[in-house]
Amino acid sequence: MGLSGWSLPLSPGGGAALVPPPPWHFSGEALGIDFRGDPEAVAAVLPAGLEPVGDGSASFVFCEWSSSADHDPRLIADPARGQYHEAYVAVAARLEGTSVARVPYIWVDNDLSFARGHIQGFPKKAGAIAITRAVAVGRGGPRLEAGATFHGQVSGLGVQLARGSVTLEEPAPEGFIPRALRLPVWHTRLVPDLAGGPPLVHDLARNLVTDFAVADVWTGAGRLELFGSEFEELAALAPVEVTGGFRGSVAFTIVGAEVRTAGPGA
Amino acid sequence: MGLSGWSLPLSPGGGAALVPPPPWHFSGEALGIDFRGDPEAVAAVLPAGLEPVGDGSASFVFCEWSSSADHDPRLIADPARGQYHEAYVAVAARLEGTSVARVPYIWVDNDLSFARGHIQGFPKKAGAIAITRAVAVGRGGPRLEAGATFHGQVSGLGVQLARGSVTLEEPAPEGFIPRALRLPVWHTRLVPDLAGGPPLVHDLARNLVTDFAVADVWTGAGRLELFGSEFEELAALAPVEVTGGFRGSVAFTIVGAEVRTAGPGA
Amino acid sequence: MGLSGWSLPLSPGGGAALVPPPPWHFSGEALGIDFRGDPEAVAAVLPAGLEPVGDGSASFVFCEWSSSADHDPRLIADPARGQYHEAYVAVAARLEGTSVARVPYIWVDNDLSFARGHIQGFPKKAGAIAITRAVAVGRGGPRLEAGATFHGQVSGLGVQLARGSVTLEEPAPEGFIPRALRLPVWHTRLVPDLAGGPPLVHDLARNLVTDFAVADVWTGAGRLELFGSEFEELAALAPVEVTGGFRGSVAFTIVGAEVRTAGPGA
Amino acid sequence: MGLSGWSLPLSPGGGAALVPPPPWHFSGEALGIDFRGDPEAVAAVLPAGLEPVGDGSASFVFCEWSSSADHDPRLIADPARGQYHEAYVAVAARLEGTSVARVPYIWVDNDLSFARGHIQGFPKKAGAIAITRAVAVGRGGPRLEAGATFHGQVSGLGVQLARGSVTLEEPAPEGFIPRALRLPVWHTRLVPDLAGGPPLVHDLARNLVTDFAVADVWTGAGRLELFGSEFEELAALAPVEVTGGFRGSVAFTIVGAEVRTAGPGA
Repeated sequence: MGLSGWSLPLSPGGGAALVPPPPWHFSGEALGIDFRGDPEAVAAVLPAGLEPVGDGSASFVFCEWSSSADHDPRLIADPARGQYHEAYVAVAARLEGTSVARVPYIWVDNDLSFARGHIQGFPKKAGAIAITRAVAVGRGGPRLEAGATFHGQVSGLGVQLARGSVTLEEPAPEGFIPRALRLPVWHTRLVPDLAGGPPLVHDLARNLVTDFAVADVWTGAGRLELFGSEFEELAALAPVEVTGGFRGSVAFTIVGAEVRTAGPGA
Repeated sequence: MGLSGWSLPLSPGGGAALVPPPPWHFSGEALGIDFRGDPEAVAAVLPAGLEPVGDGSASFVFCEWSSSADHDPRLIADPARGQYHEAYVAVAARLEGTSVARVPYIWVDNDLSFARGHIQGFPKKAGAIAITRAVAVGRGGPRLEAGATFHGQVSGLGVQLARGSVTLEEPAPEGFIPRALRLPVWHTRLVPDLAGGPPLVHDLARNLVTDFAVADVWTGAGRLELFGSEFEELAALAPVEVTGGFRGSVAFTIVGAEVRTAGPGA
Repeated sequence: MGLSGWSLPLSPGGGAALVPPPPWHFSGEALGIDFRGDPEAVAAVLPAGLEPVGDGSASFVFCEWSSSADHDPRLIADPARGQYHEAYVAVAARLEGTSVARVPYIWVDNDLSFARGHIQGFPKKAGAIAITRAVAVGRGGPRLEAGATFHGQVSGLGVQLARGSVTLEEPAPEGFIPRALRLPVWHTRLVPDLAGGPPLVHDLARNLVTDFAVADVWTGAGRLELFGSEFEELAALAPVEVTGGFRGSVAFTIVGAEVRTAGPGA
Repeated sequence: MGLSGWSLPLSPGGGAALVPPPPWHFSGEALGIDFRGDPEAVAAVLPAGLEPVGDGSASFVFCEWSSSADHDPRLIADPARGQYHEAYVAVAARLEGTSVARVPYIWVDNDLSFARGHIQGFPKKAGAIAITRAVAVGRGGPRLEAGATFHGQVSGLGVQLARGSVTLEEPAPEGFIPRALRLPVWHTRLVPDLAGGPPLVHDLARNLVTDFAVADVWTGAGRLELFGSEFEELAALAPVEVTGGFRGSVAFTIVGAEVRTAGPGA
């Protein structure tokens, strides 16, 4: 008797829950543009507890994800469930002297990813995202080769928010991990209370990640435009200088979270 | 300085937040089918603390909503933001002797509604929903008149979950409020903790509602089919008997929530 | 034996065809902004055979349609099939001394409407369209009353193409028909030949319309912005002056077409 | 002066046209299930001029396409424009003693592909299509390896139409081309005349294809289900026996068409 489910919806058999418990596995094709924004604007998206690096360094990443979960085989068995597109901006920061990152804004096109993200503290919104796929044969799209250009774009509520591209130059050296992917990301978990009063949840958290891997990483020249929208403050982070670009396969597993108390303004 | 927002995403100016604080106003066109499901199956979707009515009475409602918020004029100014479609099943229950309702399953097509719903405890998933609109002139669709049939359908992940219809018979008597709309709905607010351990939030809550109004309510003959899906347990609630149908305009304002402790299995 | 269908796909039973034969019935809620564009730009979207009016007069219309067909009851029975949103620009022109209109650009969100439009000569593309609905009760959206503002927007491929609004001032006089709705629209029917050579179809056509009706028409102050897109030439028609706005219910039936030979450049 | 464009919409600069002229290049990842349907049902979807093979042999293919065009660099530069998903059934047939194929039903999720398909005679409708992607690293999805299962599904108007899967067994021998990809497909080009009378275009056509290539083809065990829908006749082709499965990269270029007169019932 009783209702089951790690997340809503609860149901008698537990089969209706949107989000299964971790471990969660992620494999994706990432397209990233490294840039420097206005240092003050980049500092302004950090919560209390994170310190700005000072040079406005940031990355915009488009990613086509496949996801699965140890406790729910339905995710990998249904591409409409486990696969999705994502676009986000990550800014560099420091936490007690270590290099970390913060993702102030992120969009996805899948409700599982949306809900799973909010459980982590990713401030996800729905977006329409398109990312160039690499082709294996023919001329319908670019191949993984020098000179090939890969594009990404994201829109929300019918308004384009960002678009970028990377023209591949050369395979990255063995062991290279793009900056945008290698820093721990500290999120704010925030659940408002409709009954009034302070938030029900308000802390800082980062994912505990295992089995991080990259493959077929190329570096190249990046281009990036961030656009204005009355529903976003993304444009304040517009690039002053684009410093690099990459495209590659990436994977990791999320097994849990580390949590810290959030200060005011977090 | 610091970050602002009643919900994620937090931002320097507070303009990126997905969900503004209440009061929230809702105006919609609702199409509802009242039915009796298998009493045991209906009882099985109730959390600890709610008692079954015993006759399996329930309603399936399709609704086309317009929403606004006192503290965010952008919702009413952008139809892509404030408007959405919703489909849900509500079952009758009792709480300490009073008649209440429970919405075990619900789908929407808008991320604001999704996030706002989870703050209330509505266990929303994304769905593709289509509902017949009433037309004012011509023969492109049905008018609000006896004999006109209005249809609703919802699918998730490419699989049809429910479809129903109501053929209007007569305007409802003055003061009539469809059962599916008049009972307080008790939700489970549930936020899992990625760091392990018990949920961060786990209680029972109902919305505090003001300014409830209906208009142009018609009653009529309903039809309803609930379909199987490997991601849902909805089909267990399939109608044994359809007992009625209605179509009408409905509105209310949500100003807050009343909260109770959740027992085990809630 | 043999395959049946007025349009593709042909099938043994004729039930797979996307578009049924006329008569087709349309009932909609239209939001229109009348404006004057650059006269040369407006003249430039006319095919040979149509003469410019000279003052750049045009209208942008957002419409939420319900459609049905005498020979296919499935359209009115499934709201996912018969209902859709549309956005288009219409420019005034003259044909042999009579006032006509031309729709150079139009977007819809439904494949039936897309295919049915191309059969007429409407040059439809897919778009994401949102239009404010009028509410009957409550404060979730605007009512049909003086001072209420209705918005429309259309995007294609994730880029906003147009947005406009009308603030209602007063009900239109009895018998008033918005200019954007009352002129016959002359289309170019054009079907290219993949085998090379001239188009398989290339002529001018207008719909034969019966049972035209309007209701609840209000006039008011309009606002309109047309945006650039690398896939469109819409922005060339950007308003020099907005001359009016309206919102109302509209209906008509299409029973056939009148066809003329197209000249070069049509 | 005058209007330009190989397809609608015509525009002063020719930049608004939805479909550019050939050559068109296609590169895709195809997932196919070979099966035998009821021989009479399979024969019944052939137009006059095509003879049934007699054993009901057919294939269902899910494909994720990238497309480009020599005369329109915008297709490859915008992933929202050139990339799309497709699902179709192809049945084997004979034309004057040679082996050919016929695609009676096909769905896509992109308006360029929709319009380009109808120009060829592909009877495309809009569908929601999801196909498992191969991953390069990690456990978020399957890799190209023995035992990995890839899934495809398509829905239309919120109703699931088909789903299938292939569990990879071994790489196909060098030079192997899946049957579903190697036969010329004969289409019916059909354009109804809204002005009444016979269709404006009604013939049989096949694409002229160059640069056909496949890579990374695996064969394996297939599974396929075709579902009923009141808007389709697909379910009549439901598999009596699934005879094989494959997954691989495929590419070709369409440079034109060969056309034949259509007989009655074509």
